[in-house]
Amino acid sequence: MDISHIEHIGIAVKSIEETKKYYEGVLGLKCYAIEEVAEQKVKTAFFKVGQTKIELLEPTSEDSTVAKFIENKGEGIHHIAFCVNGIEKCLSEAELAGLRLIDKAPRKGAEGLSIAFLHPKSTFGVLTEMCENKNK
Amino acid sequence: MDISHIEHIGIAVKSIEETKKYYEGVLGLKCYAIEEVAEQKVKTAFFKVGQTKIELLEPTSEDSTVAKFIENKGEGIHHIAFCVNGIEKCLSEAELAGLRLIDKAPRKGAEGLSIAFLHPKSTFGVLTEMCENKNK
Repeated sequence: MDISHIEHIGIAVKSIEETKKYYEGVLGLKCYAIEEVAEQKVKTAFFKVGQTKIELLEPTSEDSTVAKFIENKGEGIHHIAFCVNGIEKCLSEAELAGLRLIDKAPRKGAEGLSIAFLHPKSTFGVLTEMCENKNK
Repeated sequence: MDISHIEHIGIAVKSIEETKKYYEGVLGLKCYAIEEVAEQKVKTAFFKVGQTKIELLEPTSEDSTVAKFIENKGEGIHHIAFCVNGIEKCLSEAELAGLRLIDKAPRKGAEGLSIAFLHPKSTFGVLTEMCENKNK
């Protein structure tokens, strides 16, 4: 696979409004965008930290997978997203290696990226996202 | 706080040997160091991904905090570490903001960095490490 860097780290939170106070007021990071991703039933807030973003994920519905994550495990780190070149090829390679794909083909995620998730059961417990910016 | 980037992401694993096959063989990342941190009762393996490292943490003892993490939550993302300038000042600011410090003063971590942890109960579920390279 051709991974260039960690695109973002997804963090499941109950309230972006509350958590933002910590990331901005204590850590001194700046929230540069808040976006709703209706398909995933979440509201997202983005902070840039060097090359990588922190993406807070607040569920907008009780049946959101993020709501279920919080119910089971509490607030906390939800996933890692790698920035890749050639997302389709990455998915083929992952499948060939016996990994379980949550998305067989890329779909549209926050910030207009093409994204696909690998199941944590096949990646040693880490929900892993592949992202590619096809608009650049 | 003066945070420059995400220094590393710590991932708790049962076996570095097994997990390394996935990070190297499937993701195509390269493990450039394996180091035992006796004080924390872990073996660590490092992979560079752009500006950030992935640090696999394998417990070397059953009473390691990482062993307990795996027992309670399973393998998975364990913590985020921010690279900071002025770690003592960061800790003072964190304390002043009412955060719970696991380390009141920096101590030596893997790769010779000065490190200190903030308790996840005060950081919205995210075990948060501050790191500074004082040898550069």
